[in-house]
Formats: sequence, C-alpha cells, structure tokens
Amino acid sequence: MGKADDCRRLALLEAQRALREAQRALVIIIAGVDGAGRHAVINALTHGFDTRGVRVHAWTPESAPGAHRPPFWRYWQALPARGQIGLFLDGWYTAPIEAAFRGEEACCETLKAFEAQLAADGAVLVKLWVDLDVGRARAAIRTRIKAEDRAPTVSEQCVLAAQDDADDGLTALREQTGEWTVVPGGKSKRAAKAAIDGVIEALQNPDPVRPARRRARRPAKASPLAQLDLDARLGKQAAKRDIDALQAELARRLWAAHRREQPVVMLLEGWDAAGKGGVIRRVTAPLDARLFQVVPIAAPNDEERARPYLWRFWRQLPRDGHMTIFDRSWYGRVLVERVEGFAQPHEWQRAYGEINDFEAQLVAHGTVLVKLWLHISPEEQLRRFAARAETPHKQHKLTEEDWRNRDQWGDYLAAVDEMIARTDRPGAPWTLVPANSKPYARRAVLQTLVNALDGD
Amino acid sequence: MGKADDCRRLALLEAQRALREAQRALVIIIAGVDGAGRHAVINALTHGFDTRGVRVHAWTPESAPGAHRPPFWRYWQALPARGQIGLFLDGWYTAPIEAAFRGEEACCETLKAFEAQLAADGAVLVKLWVDLDVGRARAAIRTRIKAEDRAPTVSEQCVLAAQDDADDGLTALREQTGEWTVVPGGKSKRAAKAAIDGVIEALQNPDPVRPARRRARRPAKASPLAQLDLDARLGKQAAKRDIDALQAELARRLWAAHRREQPVVMLLEGWDAAGKGGVIRRVTAPLDARLFQVVPIAAPNDEERARPYLWRFWRQLPRDGHMTIFDRSWYGRVLVERVEGFAQPHEWQRAYGEINDFEAQLVAHGTVLVKLWLHISPEEQLRRFAARAETPHKQHKLTEEDWRNRDQWGDYLAAVDEMIARTDRPGAPWTLVPANSKPYARRAVLQTLVNALDGD
Repeated sequence: MGKADDCRRLALLEAQRALREAQRALVIIIAGVDGAGRHAVINALTHGFDTRGVRVHAWTPESAPGAHRPPFWRYWQALPARGQIGLFLDGWYTAPIEAAFRGEEACCETLKAFEAQLAADGAVLVKLWVDLDVGRARAAIRTRIKAEDRAPTVSEQCVLAAQDDADDGLTALREQTGEWTVVPGGKSKRAAKAAIDGVIEALQNPDPVRPARRRARRPAKASPLAQLDLDARLGKQAAKRDIDALQAELARRLWAAHRREQPVVMLLEGWDAAGKGGVIRRVTAPLDARLFQVVPIAAPNDEERARPYLWRFWRQLPRDGHMTIFDRSWYGRVLVERVEGFAQPHEWQRAYGEINDFEAQLVAHGTVLVKLWLHISPEEQLRRFAARAETPHKQHKLTEEDWRNRDQWGDYLAAVDEMIARTDRPGAPWTLVPANSKPYARRAVLQTLVNALDGD
Repeated sequence: MGKADDCRRLALLEAQRALREAQRALVIIIAGVDGAGRHAVINALTHGFDTRGVRVHAWTPESAPGAHRPPFWRYWQALPARGQIGLFLDGWYTAPIEAAFRGEEACCETLKAFEAQLAADGAVLVKLWVDLDVGRARAAIRTRIKAEDRAPTVSEQCVLAAQDDADDGLTALREQTGEWTVVPGGKSKRAAKAAIDGVIEALQNPDPVRPARRRARRPAKASPLAQLDLDARLGKQAAKRDIDALQAELARRLWAAHRREQPVVMLLEGWDAAGKGGVIRRVTAPLDARLFQVVPIAAPNDEERARPYLWRFWRQLPRDGHMTIFDRSWYGRVLVERVEGFAQPHEWQRAYGEINDFEAQLVAHGTVLVKLWLHISPEEQLRRFAARAETPHKQHKLTEEDWRNRDQWGDYLAAVDEMIARTDRPGAPWTLVPANSKPYARRAVLQTLVNALDGD
C-alpha cells in the first residue's frame, strides 16, 4: 500500500474520531448503476474506517427489511446512532434510480424531507455517485455474471433492460436532489480512492448544525377544546349495551383489515387521569392478541435518545394487517417536552412539520390513523387523583409529576390547542373526546375506531 | 370489578415491582388449543400489570419474525430484559402443539435447553396451559369465526383438522416438558382469573437463581496448538496468485450459497495482532456488499448486558443465503471474560454447553459454520506491536489493554486449549491457522472458507 493510501486511512480515522467526539452521525450513500463498482467502494470505505460503529446496509429485494411496512421504515431502522457510521448501497435512491431505468421520473419530496431531518439532527450526509454510463455498466455486468457463474440479480436485470435515455434520467435525478460527489466508476481501485477522497473532503468541512428557522406561530383561533360538551354523559347500562356491540363489530372489522393487509395506528393523548388505560382495555378486550400491540410511551432510552426523535415511533409501526395502539405518542414532543423544556424551542417547533410528514407517509401507505385526545376538566382530574390516592391498586399511577403537571394546566392547554391547529390534516384528523364521563368516552372511542375501519 | 379482582391486581403489581427490583425477567407462556381462550388470558394479564416494560409476542405465521433464520431466532429476539416482562402466545411450544394435532411427537431438547438457559440467567418462567379439549375447542372456533365473519386462521385450521388422539398428545407434551399451570379454558373470565392466580402464585415463590453445577474439567490433552507449524510461510508473489484465484472462487461459491438459501457464519478468534483485520479484508474484497455483514464484537452495551449472554449474537445471525463474519465472537465468554474475570466461573463454565447448543442449532438449520483461530507466537506479536506503534494509521489499534493481555499469555493459552477441546464438534469444527506469516494465513483462511462452501 502506497504512502498516499496511508495518508487517506489516517485522514479517515481522524475524521471518524472527530465525528464521534462531536456526537454526529455519518450517513454515506454509495449510489450508481449496478456494475459501476459500488461494492468495491463500500469495501474500501469499511476497511478505511475503524470498523467499530460502522454498519453497511446493502440489501437484495428479498433481504431488505420492512416488507409490509411504509417504504421509509427500513431507512429509519438502519439509522446510525450519533457518533456512528452507516453506509447505504443506494439507500433511499433505490426506487428513483430504478424509475430512471424505466424512463420515469420519481417524486423525491419524501427523501428530501428525510435528509433535512437527518441534517437537523446533526447527521453528516455524504452522497457518492459511482459513475458509469449504462452501456459500459451492461458490459461489466455481463462479464461479472459469467465469471461468477450466476444469473443476473434483480437490480442487474434493471440495468440490462434500461431505457435508452436512462443516463439522462440519472443525471436529472442527481441535479434534482443536489450535493452529490461524483466519482468515476468502472475501475474499482480508482473509484475507491476517489470515493475516500470525497468522504474525507466532506468530513473536513461538514455543514454546521443549524437549527431550522422558527416558523411564525399561527394566529390563535377559537380553541376547539372549548367547544366540547364535557357534560356529555352516558349511563353505565346503556354504555355496556353499546360497548358490547361495538366491541363485536371492532373484532370483525379488524379481521377484515387483516385480510386487506391494511395497517391501523391508534394513538391516545389526553390529560393525566383522562382514562386512557380504561379505554385501551375496552378496545383490546375483544381482539386477538396476534393482531395488535399496545406500546406505552415513556421517556426514551439511551439507544433512542441517540437518534432523531421519530426513530422510536418508526420502529413500533405495525406490520400491514395489524394494529399498534400508542399509549401516548410522538405528540409528546409538542406537549410535555415543550412545556417542561425537555426539547429546545427549535426542536419542538420543527416537530409539527416532521410529524405531518411522518403521518402523511403512513396515510400514503394505506394506514388507518386514529388520533384521539381525551379531554377532561381540571375539576374532574382532581376528583380522579383523589380517588387514585385512596385505591391501593391505583396508587402506582399517581406520582408527584402528575401534581406538577396539573399546576401548568394553562401551558398545556396552549400546547394542545397549537398541536390540534397544526396537525389536524386530511387522512390524519384529531378526534376530541369529552371524557368527564368514562362510559361516554369509552363508547365514543370505540365508535370512532369502528367508523375509521372499513366494514368489509 | 369485585374486591377479589382488586386484590389480584394489587398482588400482580407488587410482584412486578419485586421482579424489577431483583432485576429478574419474567417470561410467561400462554399456551393451549386455539379456541380455548388464550387471547382473553393475555389481555387480562397485560391489563393487570403496569404496562410499562410488558410486551406481548403473539404472531400469525406470516407476522412471526425470523423467517429465513434458525427456528429459535424469534424467541431470542423477543426475550425481555431483566426486570421486564414478556408474554408469549404458545411461544416455543407452537411447533410441538401443532405436531400433537398431527398425531406426531415433537423433539423438545432444544426448548428444554433454552428454558434452562433462561433460568440460569435468573429469568422467572411461568407456563400457563389454557385447557380445553379439542372437541369443545372446535365448537368454540366455529362460533367465533361465524361471529367475526372470517375464514379460520392457520392455527384454527390445525385444530379443526386435528387427529382424534390430539388431546393425549398434548397431555404427553405437558408431562414431558414439566411445570405447567393448567387453567380451565372455555369461559374467558374464569380462565383469566385462574391464570392471574397462577402467575401470582408462581411469582410469590420464584425459584432462586442457582448457578449451574460446575462440570468437572476434562483432563488436559496435548495442546493441538503446540502441533501447529508456526514457521509455515508463503512468498508474497505466490500468495497473491493463490489469493486472487481463491477470491474469485469464493465470490462464485457465495453466490451459489445465496441461490441455495444457505446461511454462512464465519468467526475469527486469535491473539491480538494475529491479523484478523487483514484476513477479513481479503475475504470481503471480492464480495457483493449485499451478501455479507462484518460484525465486530466489543464489550456489550446496556441493552445486551440486560439479557442472556448469547442474545447479542443471535440478533446478528445472517438471513438464509447471506454471510456474517464475526470479528471476535461468542467465544469471548470463555477467553477474555474468563481470563479477566468479567464472567463468574459458573457463567463461563456453563458457556461451553450453551455455545455447543447454539452452534448445533445453526448447523441443524443448514448453516455453514467456519470457526478460525489465528495463531501466532509471542515473539511475532511483540514485533507487530512495535510496528503498530510506529505506523500512524495503525496506532489506534494498539492499546494499553493489548500489553496487559500479553502479560497473561499463559492463562489465555490454557483458555484457548480448553475452548478447542470442548467446542470442536461435528459440523462446528475449529480450524487452527498458523499466522506468523500473514500471506500464509490469508491464503489458508480463504482456502478453508472455499472448502466449506459447496461448489454448486
């Protein structure tokens, strides 16, 4: 190995150390036409870094994780923690590249929003394009599959069958998505050296972490919460009859969703003691345990804290044909984290947009999304706290924190109002449930869920 | 809810708190015939516990994780951390129960070894059998699928098509696998109460954590390491010619394994500076990045430390048709952890058996398992340490720890000898590679790997 190679490796190791110290993730995309030599580039890069904390994500269509989940699920799963490195073969450019082979133009809005989220989280993103025109790539593929005595893979078939104007489409894709480092493909050693130089250069001047600009706050509208009839009540007997019928219908409709392979996401937010647990019990009682999962959301653990905020919710998304019930949710970012100051203003401010993007991806994937706010009055909450304090098997539910949160009712109310105003979207509407009467709230939630699910 | 139910919930919460404090995992199996009411029991149990730290694992055949991996992969993935709770619908009894429906007897050795490992790790295992004879279960299933307007699931079909003597088979299964709490099925409320009582009783008197008995050490045999010809050398030129040819053949054979959907696991152990990194570079250089993953093994993280030792290796197993290269491996338990005292004697002593069970499962699943020990002399190691200290891009590889390990050469040698004696097994043999000459070692590893993989 030559002197220049030694310098390269030293520079890579130094950059890796600096990133680890700065606690910034490094995400490298190695993209290009199959046959251009992307694999040699990946191997050279992994050998250049200290392998601890480096992970390669290169999938065949069958081995790619996250079939039966929204398309970006797999990229979220694979995100490196801060201070670590992830190398992606094509990554989220897989579908746009394949579109170019077919002569189609791909929509890149989702991937741009994803990259913006990585950047806002401090990740350094390096996009390498291993460049070879389709004609020469085809020749390289034919040589290789002969030497390796095998049929072409799916992605190789795409190149072999590519449209004549595929090269133009790929150029347009790069122009549309910006900031590519193009390295010459074909000769693997030359490509590897150029790639390493590209990574080193990007790492020597990484973009500073810039908080997203704070969006102007919308003018306050009349609070929809104030319109709720909190006195809405239902007798226990009448409720039981309705609830029994709704539970039976829910079981039927969830099986129907399972048959259609449609995923269901239900999230519950609401005041402390608003009755979330009781609602979840009524929803899940009639259901087959294989069809749903209840995910209680508490403070993030270390692994979760080391990645962009939405990572831990992406990992819990249901597989198609199944339901996840989030007991509290990603809205904690703009509720408790905002009010208690756990998130910086620029973090929770940008969360509205991130959440809307996230939910739009769920909806685009065909997910039934039910967002519920259980609303009670401060007086009703006080009554329930007192009852909890007196009931042995409920005492664990009442903590110091609950009393502290109560003191900030007004701040929370403002946060809830803004949350509803900014995230009540087509396909992702909020349902506000008057919950001073538990039987009323339980029936209302079951009815909402049944209505959201198709009957057949 | 009655007074007795309140007492039950209080007892469950108290038991959960005690387990959390004792940092013991709780694993509950809820098994039985489909239609007996297992889902109601699961729902009742999850509602009884504080939901934080509780997770239900109930899968349909399609939603079960770990297709294309050894059968127990999914159970390892799902293991709760110490202090947490996992509920499994049938769990590792799924296959034996289905065997009973077909009138067949299942082999339960693997699941018994698995349960023994959980117990040795301090987990509390509660096995509930929701009991209903097959005849009544069939009637329950017919009623239910009519009400829910759906076709029977795969597991329901198993019951509907069960052999006449299925009940006897299930009884035999329970007797063979011991320690079941049988609760009456059919009526869901009664079953739920009995199940909760069963769990409470088991939790009030959990088995103490008992270190497995220490097996007598085998008489020392002549060390196979002493037989190695460490002077075996190969010229750089000759090595390059061979290595080029072997790399091409390896690429060809790994694609063939991919076609056959055969998984490959290669693990590298050896002295510090034995040349593991250089070997891995030569093995991976010709390979398609989608077909393999290199997993460097360092100290476990918090999530890994909270589970049985082998958990973190199970999660890294390759999908069928792919290769994982472990740069150091599970043998750390009986090498560095033994010598440095990171593992207690009873822990590393029982690891030989656990490792043999683990590897036997890989082999039974059809995995090509290549275990390599790179052997160098202490003099050669010293030369390499000195060279590292002088080479800027290698300095990060040399730590204080390396010098300390060197002082304990004799202890390590004894550990390696015992490791080889106890874990060199049919289908899982050790290959001892003389590595004083790097070209020789690299060629030898490539040759070993090529030989282990079928040619077509």
